[in-house]
This record gives sequence, structure tokens and C-alpha cells, in this order.
Amino acid sequence: MLTFVGAGLASLDDLTCSGLKAIKQANFLYLDAYTSIMPGFAEELKELTGKDVKPADRELVEETDEIIEKAKNHNVVFIVIGDPLSATTHTDLILRAVDSNVQFKIIHNTSIMTAVGCCGLQLYNFGATVSIPFWDELGTPDSFYDKLLWNFSAGLHTLCLLDIKAISPLESFQVKERSTENILRERKVYEPPRYMSCGHAAYQLLQIIERRSSADIGLSSDCLAIGLARIGSTDQVVAVSTLKEMGRGHPAESNTGKQTPITAALGGPLHSLIVPSQLHPVEEEFLGCCLRSSGDFPALPKIFAPTQTVGVDVIRELFRNHNNLVSNVRNVIRNPIVHYYESLFLFWLVTNPFLLS
Amino acid sequence: MLTFVGAGLASLDDLTCSGLKAIKQANFLYLDAYTSIMPGFAEELKELTGKDVKPADRELVEETDEIIEKAKNHNVVFIVIGDPLSATTHTDLILRAVDSNVQFKIIHNTSIMTAVGCCGLQLYNFGATVSIPFWDELGTPDSFYDKLLWNFSAGLHTLCLLDIKAISPLESFQVKERSTENILRERKVYEPPRYMSCGHAAYQLLQIIERRSSADIGLSSDCLAIGLARIGSTDQVVAVSTLKEMGRGHPAESNTGKQTPITAALGGPLHSLIVPSQLHPVEEEFLGCCLRSSGDFPALPKIFAPTQTVGVDVIRELFRNHNNLVSNVRNVIRNPIVHYYESLFLFWLVTNPFLLS
Repeated sequence: MLTFVGAGLASLDDLTCSGLKAIKQANFLYLDAYTSIMPGFAEELKELTGKDVKPADRELVEETDEIIEKAKNHNVVFIVIGDPLSATTHTDLILRAVDSNVQFKIIHNTSIMTAVGCCGLQLYNFGATVSIPFWDELGTPDSFYDKLLWNFSAGLHTLCLLDIKAISPLESFQVKERSTENILRERKVYEPPRYMSCGHAAYQLLQIIERRSSADIGLSSDCLAIGLARIGSTDQVVAVSTLKEMGRGHPAESNTGKQTPITAALGGPLHSLIVPSQLHPVEEEFLGCCLRSSGDFPALPKIFAPTQTVGVDVIRELFRNHNNLVSNVRNVIRNPIVHYYESLFLFWLVTNPFLLS
Repeated sequence: MLTFVGAGLASLDDLTCSGLKAIKQANFLYLDAYTSIMPGFAEELKELTGKDVKPADRELVEETDEIIEKAKNHNVVFIVIGDPLSATTHTDLILRAVDSNVQFKIIHNTSIMTAVGCCGLQLYNFGATVSIPFWDELGTPDSFYDKLLWNFSAGLHTLCLLDIKAISPLESFQVKERSTENILRERKVYEPPRYMSCGHAAYQLLQIIERRSSADIGLSSDCLAIGLARIGSTDQVVAVSTLKEMGRGHPAESNTGKQTPITAALGGPLHSLIVPSQLHPVEEEFLGCCLRSSGDFPALPKIFAPTQTVGVDVIRELFRNHNNLVSNVRNVIRNPIVHYYESLFLFWLVTNPFLLS
């Protein structure tokens, strides 16, 4: 039996009761060690269960049959941070289990794609999720920007999952991520672990906006951006600002170690970024609610306005400005169904014999 | 302290360890009883913890301050089936807690919006989620169809959450959902509980397709539809067929009790429906993988082809046909960014002095 157990986002306590049960009954434990990370998870699990957790890198999962072979005669548990089938689909492993007549079971858990609701934006208002990859000497891919713009023009928010290069859940675990160059040259040289920050993602987005500045449709650097750090943990941070403010100083900042108020507030990995589209009044209310109470609510969104003072007026202005920017894009790139009829009409005008005569 | 605990989808065992801990430490337990349901949950929880769980209907949550008042001096846990902030956002309750200076905490869990990955479609390829409401004598709303078509034309799958009228997690709990007519006439007459089935949802979709048949863009009744039943439980079912086949006999069937092979396979509530867009080869492989093995894998998708025989060829044909239907729509309603430039060009043609002279 091969059981896929979702580990949730933040700590061992986030395991479901059924997940923990499956782990306790397991003969062999593997931990997906290349798609996400939960610091200290493997060590704590060993302490709790007395069982060794073998980190499973991409090579072990995709290029060997070790897991399937063991699952033929034993209880094998494959632990995945988040949900086993959401941000990463391990369907290939399931299909190989089916081919080998090995029964499988999925124990779901929360994923960043669900937990993102904690920022107050409604999950119904999110379009397709995108991934932002690190740029390197071999390329600066930006195809995700088109998807983001499609969501934006449809009035849908975009959750951007940020690149993780190399994951080392155990001290003893050899980092296994290679640069594109090293892969192309077939060199087994592994990169140091890197986690893209919200600032870095915003910086890359600003570069794309500048690159495409000749087009008169696109995001503005004054659009809102929502940074998420360590969602689901006790020290989670939700930071609201403009793209420009979020990306200020990056990536130079990562070299000099200089921090902006936002990077200081967000802190260490893991980060995700939201590029919101039109905000519903209820969503605005939640994003700006840190001003409602004198109490300290660490889980509530923190607003970092481009001006130094953050008051009700500044926040209202920030949201109004953002919604105007969204409207500008939406007026240009409207619903394609409307565009379809519009094009038909224009085509009729063009081909109208009266006009052409 | 007000703690929101996600209960997951299928059983008490789906609670996270931290969720169970919070429940055990609670002085008062409430169960969101109007947005989703987990049969037997409240009774089992009482058996496990010895604590009473008070069902919280919409009136109690939205129109009274009972929960906030208790949370001022006690540990109050508000349990939500699925994740506390995904399919339903309880941000209003959080804001009221903040206003009253009551600390809050979110314990996330899996939601259907995550667990839907079990059908083998990649969550990255999903557009915005829609809700399909029951039609009644006062209206047949279909605004969700435009969103669905927008996803479809963008190559994105759509998860449709199906209406629930009245939830009764406890035998003793008075059903609190009213018909629109009774709400309008201010009559406190409550409806019997109803859960929309995949067949019913497909039937309503087919009605909309027929209604809009004069438009030459839209879904076809031969498009694929994926029915999901009791996802996350041990008896979950994933059924793949065409919209026509999925909706056959509805809603008459619900009156006469006649069943089709699909409705028989799907069984009782809760149901959700997916309208897939262009299928990636890996997604096709998973959807059709019940043919790969001689073994019995109840969690794998079951295919119900319009023809009686289900073989590799029939399944390939089904997918090819679906992808062609998606292409047809995508060729008409393309990326709005492309449309934008196309419209500009046509406008230039129309306004070109040479043509008009």
C-alpha cells in the first residue's frame, strides 16, 4: 500500500489525525523534498514516531522504482508538504503504482492554494495560479505574465507561487537542484538552496512591465501586491503594498543585505505573492482592517503605503487608485465574448459594400 | 479567543492535530451548519470529546453576537467543514472579532477546492470556481455560465460547487434554509434539505446551452463533464462522461427515482462537477487509467462513455472529441489580448480614409 499524506503548511501539528495514523503504521517513510519545504519537519517527525524519514528528491521519485517496489509488500507513506495533489501533482507516481497493482490512498491536507484565503480575498475571485521562476543567465521567462494579465483583465486575483531552488529538509540531505546550464551540460553540480522572496518576485514583475512598456495594456507598478510569508504558521505575515514598493531595492538588496520595511516585516521563507484584480468592498475592508482596532492582531494584513503615514485616507486612496488601474486595463481588454461580437460588427463594417464602394 | 477550525471533508479523522487540540481546549463549540455538511460529524465529535456542538446557522452567525460575546471570556471554537476561509469566507465574523478586540486564530484544512486534484486534473489548469444554484419558480440564474465559458475559452477547467439547501448536521437541528419566495414574503417557512447532484447540475447546464443555442459560441452537450462524489471519504467516486450523458433523465429522474449508470455510481451527496477545458496528455492519462490495470482501484476515475462498450479506443475518441470542441470555442473566443490588437487593426481599416473615400 502506498499512502500519500499531505503534511499541511506549518508544523507537525498540521498533520491530520488520519495522516498521523498512516505514518505511525508505515514501514517506510518518504518526504517529498523538491517541491516545498517545512523547516524541522523531518527531525520532529523522527522524534515523535522514532522512524526515519527518507528525503525523496526528484531523481529518486521520477527515475527509480524504489518507492513502488517497497509498496508492493509494505506500508509506504509518501509525505508531501501541503496537499499531495495540489501545487504538485504526483499523478505519475500514482499511475506507476496502478501499473504495478499497488493500492494507493490519498490523505489530503491544506495547501497554500486554499490557505491563501487568510488574506481576506475570496477564493472564488482567484483565476488560475501561476509560478514565477528564478531568472538566470540562460533566460528570463515571462510567459506567466500573460496568464496573470488574463486574470487581471477578467477581474480575477492571481496567486503566484514563487520558485524554490533546492530543498534540504534534513541537515544530512544533499541538495539536488541543478542550474539549467549544469543540466544542459550534464554536470551533477548542485545549487545552494534559494527561496524566491516577494520582493524578488515583484522586482521580476516590474522588469517585465518595463520590458513591455511599449504595449499600452498591462500592469502598472502602482498596482497593489500582497506578500504572504509562512502562511499557516504562528508567525505568518500578510503585507499589502504597491508592486513598486514591494520590489524596491531587489535583487540588489539581496546582495547588500539592505532591507525595506516590507522585506523586514515579511522575513524568511516561504513566500507567495498575490497580484489582486478589482477589489470587492468586503475584501478591501479586510485588507485595511488593521486600522479598525487598537489591539495587536499579528495575523491581519499590514499595509505599507508608498507614503510614510498610513491612515484611513491613505489606505482608501491606495485601493481607489488600484481599482482605477484595474478598470483601465479591463476597459481595454474586456470580456472576450464581448470582443467577439465587437469584432463581428467591425468586420461587418469593413466588408459593408456601401463603405467599400 | 475565537478559533476557526477547518474540519476537512470526510470524517473526524480528517481534523488536524492542532484542530483537535483546539476543540479539546474549547469551552464552547459551534459548527457552521449552512455552507457545507459532513454527515455524522457532530455526533462523533460529541462521542470523542464529550462536548456539545451547537449548530450555527446563518441567522446565528450573521445576525447575532452570541459567538463574539462568548469569545470575549472563553475559548470558542467555530468549526467549518472543509477550510474555514475557502469556499465560504467567514471574514465578517473575523472583522467583528477584531472590532471587539477578541483574538482569533485560523486552523486551515483541506477544502474541495484543493482535494479536487484527486481526479488527476492539475490545479494550475483551473480557472475561477463557480457555484451552480438550484433553479426555482422565481428564477433560473445562469450568470455562472459566462464565467465557465471564460475559463473554457482560456483553456482552464472549471470546478462547479453545487447548491446545498438546508443543512441538518444534527437530528435535532431545525433546518433553516428558506425559499426565495418565503424570504421575500418574510415567511419563516423552512425548506426540506436538498443537495444538488452532478446529474442535476449537468441538466441545468444543458438547459442553458439550449437556451443560448442561437449564439454560435458556447459549450456543447458532447463536452466532457467530471462528476465528483464524497471526495476525501473512503467511498469517493470520480465519474467521467459527457455533459449529455451526465444530465440524462434529470431532473425528472429525481422524481421517478430512475437511475442511470452514472447516477448509480455517484450515489449520495455531496457532489461537485468539473467542466474540463483542453486536456493535457498527462491529465488524459490519469482520467483514462482505469483501463491500465486488471486490479480494482475504487479511487480512480470511472469512464461512462455514451456507447455501451468502454475500451481504449472509445476513451481516446471521447477525449479527442472533447479537445476538438474546446478548440472550436477557443478559435472563436481567443485570448482577449490578441482580440485587442485585432480590434485595433479592424478599427484602423474602418477609419482608414482611403477605404472611406
